[in-house]
Amino acid sequence: MLCVAYDGSCFHGWQAQGNAPSVQSAISSLLSSILGSETMVYGSGRTDAGVHALSQVCHFDTRSQIAPEKFALVLNTRLPKSIRILSSAEAPEGFHARFTTMSREYWYLLKRSAEMLPWDDRHVTPVKEFPSLELLNEYASLLQGTHDFTTFASARDPSESKTRDIYVSGWEMTADGFGFDVLKYRTAGNAFLYHQVRSMVGTMIECAAAGESAADFRARLEAKDRKMALRTAKADGLYLADVSYDEEKYRWFEEAYGRKD
Amino acid sequence: MLCVAYDGSCFHGWQAQGNAPSVQSAISSLLSSILGSETMVYGSGRTDAGVHALSQVCHFDTRSQIAPEKFALVLNTRLPKSIRILSSAEAPEGFHARFTTMSREYWYLLKRSAEMLPWDDRHVTPVKEFPSLELLNEYASLLQGTHDFTTFASARDPSESKTRDIYVSGWEMTADGFGFDVLKYRTAGNAFLYHQVRSMVGTMIECAAAGESAADFRARLEAKDRKMALRTAKADGLYLADVSYDEEKYRWFEEAYGRKD
Repeated sequence: MLCVAYDGSCFHGWQAQGNAPSVQSAISSLLSSILGSETMVYGSGRTDAGVHALSQVCHFDTRSQIAPEKFALVLNTRLPKSIRILSSAEAPEGFHARFTTMSREYWYLLKRSAEMLPWDDRHVTPVKEFPSLELLNEYASLLQGTHDFTTFASARDPSESKTRDIYVSGWEMTADGFGFDVLKYRTAGNAFLYHQVRSMVGTMIECAAAGESAADFRARLEAKDRKMALRTAKADGLYLADVSYDEEKYRWFEEAYGRKD
Repeated sequence: MLCVAYDGSCFHGWQAQGNAPSVQSAISSLLSSILGSETMVYGSGRTDAGVHALSQVCHFDTRSQIAPEKFALVLNTRLPKSIRILSSAEAPEGFHARFTTMSREYWYLLKRSAEMLPWDDRHVTPVKEFPSLELLNEYASLLQGTHDFTTFASARDPSESKTRDIYVSGWEMTADGFGFDVLKYRTAGNAFLYHQVRSMVGTMIECAAAGESAADFRARLEAKDRKMALRTAKADGLYLADVSYDEEKYRWFEEAYGRKD
């Protein structure tokens, strides 16, 4: 298993499709050349074009004699700088990067337009002014829990049930490495619908800018109607920040929230 | 006067020279087109190819009726994202971005190789391991003050006197926007010799990795001999972080250190 960070602005997403440059095909073809046999990596899930990863997890099968922890260095030497393998290790028996995933965590980063630095382009989403952090967190806490997220699903989401568990949902003010404010949304859940995080972020930002009450925001969620979502935030500010295979990590959630579905 | 941030990896330095892309020529040619007459911006000093700026200052002369503080927005709309005007203002009478500069501050950023993120390439310099912060700061404090910095000057430095005042010289552990450690050197002085900051950083890093004593490091400085400098650190990690025109900012330095030259 590999823990992979990548710059989404350089790829047409995680998933290999045709000839478009993808992270999956870049890693798979290099592995195939190193191992001397066709090797495919399988990720914890897709990320769209433009979406970054701090910690995507993928796995591959091999009979290679290379020590599992050496793969990070071997791959990094030949991968483009836009893909970095942060660690490699032998996967536990029965592990599958996608099917055994217990939770995914995403971050969404925003900066004030006037404070965008030259290297922020396509890595942070600019907003003219930050809306009220307090109001944003009132909305965010309404999203935590087990809900039908139809309101925030793309029309292209293929899943029958739109019910998902959100374990963590909150906004905080942080800073980039140069001392400028970064408004960060952090959410973790068992799984997310297509475009769900970007739709939640875009809607929260727009509602907060308009000063909408938490009750009105809750009505959007409860309507289970895509027309109640506002803007879908750009891919640029979105990071897949963590993928966890630990069954205990969000055990408290089941106890606190039960299951509604 | 403009306060400008730029991504040094996209330009052949600040200074306009021939057809090589430079920050100075990019801003000057856009201003000339906006103002309808040949306009040149003058910076506080050059930065080499690859060196970034968080806060380069430059000025230009104009009879334009555009309000000074509007120039930032007007320029940002048409400049490439690799150059951002952080602010614009009317310069005080007699101001010259280069000749009235009182101090310049530089940052140098290092990360552990294994923690380099995809967007760190050409913006942070990787080192296998961080050397001792304590030792680095013993060296750094020896560089503070008024010294002949011949040891750390490039052979191409044209200045007759190699004596400069260093007001601030210190290392600290900070973090990037994603929680990874960044080892940062911060130095401010009245002026720096060609490649001086990069030579001081490269030498300090190499000496600390070898565990050299502060006394031996002091001997390098006092030798006033370029052969006593070790590696010149890469341009990638270097940022022009502040340019000050405030005569009072480092007044304490004159009182504390006097002038040796």
